[in-house]
Amino acid sequence: MSTDAPAETAPMSGDAYPDDLRREVERYLERLTFADAATTGVAGLEEAMRYSLLAGGKRIRPVLALATARALGRDAAEVLPIAAALELIHTYSLIHDDLPAMDDDDLRRGRPTCHRAFGENVAILAGDGLYAEAFRHVLEQQRGEPAAILAAVRELASATGINGMVGGQYLDVAHAAPEGADGLRHLHALKTGRLIGASIMCPLLLDPTRGPATIDAFRSFANELGVLFQIVDDILDVVGDDDALGKTHGSDERLGKRTYVSEFGLERARELAAESHRGARAALAKAAPGGAAELAQITDFIYTRTS
Amino acid sequence: MSTDAPAETAPMSGDAYPDDLRREVERYLERLTFADAATTGVAGLEEAMRYSLLAGGKRIRPVLALATARALGRDAAEVLPIAAALELIHTYSLIHDDLPAMDDDDLRRGRPTCHRAFGENVAILAGDGLYAEAFRHVLEQQRGEPAAILAAVRELASATGINGMVGGQYLDVAHAAPEGADGLRHLHALKTGRLIGASIMCPLLLDPTRGPATIDAFRSFANELGVLFQIVDDILDVVGDDDALGKTHGSDERLGKRTYVSEFGLERARELAAESHRGARAALAKAAPGGAAELAQITDFIYTRTS
Repeated sequence: MSTDAPAETAPMSGDAYPDDLRREVERYLERLTFADAATTGVAGLEEAMRYSLLAGGKRIRPVLALATARALGRDAAEVLPIAAALELIHTYSLIHDDLPAMDDDDLRRGRPTCHRAFGENVAILAGDGLYAEAFRHVLEQQRGEPAAILAAVRELASATGINGMVGGQYLDVAHAAPEGADGLRHLHALKTGRLIGASIMCPLLLDPTRGPATIDAFRSFANELGVLFQIVDDILDVVGDDDALGKTHGSDERLGKRTYVSEFGLERARELAAESHRGARAALAKAAPGGAAELAQITDFIYTRTS
Repeated sequence: MSTDAPAETAPMSGDAYPDDLRREVERYLERLTFADAATTGVAGLEEAMRYSLLAGGKRIRPVLALATARALGRDAAEVLPIAAALELIHTYSLIHDDLPAMDDDDLRRGRPTCHRAFGENVAILAGDGLYAEAFRHVLEQQRGEPAAILAAVRELASATGINGMVGGQYLDVAHAAPEGADGLRHLHALKTGRLIGASIMCPLLLDPTRGPATIDAFRSFANELGVLFQIVDDILDVVGDDDALGKTHGSDERLGKRTYVSEFGLERARELAAESHRGARAALAKAAPGGAAELAQITDFIYTRTS
């Protein structure tokens, strides 16, 4: 078992990924501009923001948001503004995580990191700017009941503050997570799990007709998916291909980071990934008993991805 | 005229500052905590956030928000959540501005800057965390019509992104502002003016009974007040007392920054401050014909302050 890649251990929807949704996200992101006509002199900052935003990738978070809208029987395009906000926020977190004072990474998706390309001061501001523009974009562009939009934006803010992404990054860089498997799980639930979860919860919160039972069922799915994402991420940092990853693998070990592999060993981490994948599929079946083809595809993709 | 301090050049409400409002803000900020009970291990991050937030100061932005609520005939306490968010955002901007890659300041309000006290990685995250918690706090705590809250939070996001605070900071550190007096004014309108303006506009937007004429009149006042604030700030960096400022004066010159003093000389900068003060008082008289005692006091204070 220990030599099996996750790809070979479970029945799958194959390599399918909802590429139509990804293309829709990509087109939407490419059209985004941030500086108003009256704001002069900031082209260099906007360039740094778009350089990092348009570096490609699977766009898992916005694609999850669109797929969740479809699972609810709605038009995926309805949630494009909040989907884009999720990707802006993810991009901001990568820029700040790569900074010299943090993980000090030179490469991201095969290209120089933002601070290597534009300087450290511009990179800090590009991250800050992307976070601000994420909120501005969804508050200006997202259609829906005002109370529902408020709930969704509240989820965005909560998922990215001290009880979410920023808190998790602190636990990571300050080596401050509690000991043991629960501590590791807590670190990752905050650092990556909350934003993955928000990608599923925001479209639900935008739909005021969904009851609390549906919301709870999707939250279980979201939590399990976040765990799965992180276990596979940790495995890929050890066994991944540099070219496919677009960065140097082994950086977790170099930085002395706590991962599922350092905590449990590679073999057990793979077993945990398989368990988590089964758990996520079961939770999805409960949340969307009528089927949710794209969410199932993304769940399988997150399990079987090689980069 | 060139030896006159701003304090001596115009009729004033004296040294009055609405200290009752400041105390109300201070008490509210002191009670704020950010980590939920279920979030473990982040005490060190929360400490860094509160260290910077509770460093004292006149709390001009939240006091402006409370004073604006009073000028509209409402209870100042109604807008405490968004007033606190303004101060959290201001604090985040100071932490990031002080970083080694930015202004590289060691002291802020007489104490070590956040990165000197807690390390650069924690300081970056403390800033990021304060910004996220600002949005979360107002979205969870601010009472009002959902559409009005959305409008106010939209103003917060817009005022702090590439068309506001972050864009202005970029113009400053990248020396990217257009040439001449208009370029300088544009830099400061973004860097400090928009958040000063938001402190006045947010309480207005939270009150859905105000018409567009009132909003326009207050916006004129807010714009003029932002300009006044910055001119005086630039003068104080040259003539200020280190102990009163809590930082080393002359840092603008050391960093080669463009200021009203470097652009116009000290004497003309003082004249511009006096003109701007008169303009702000006139705009306020139009916006609040029934009187707005606290806003008038703050306007005078911003003009006559010595730190």
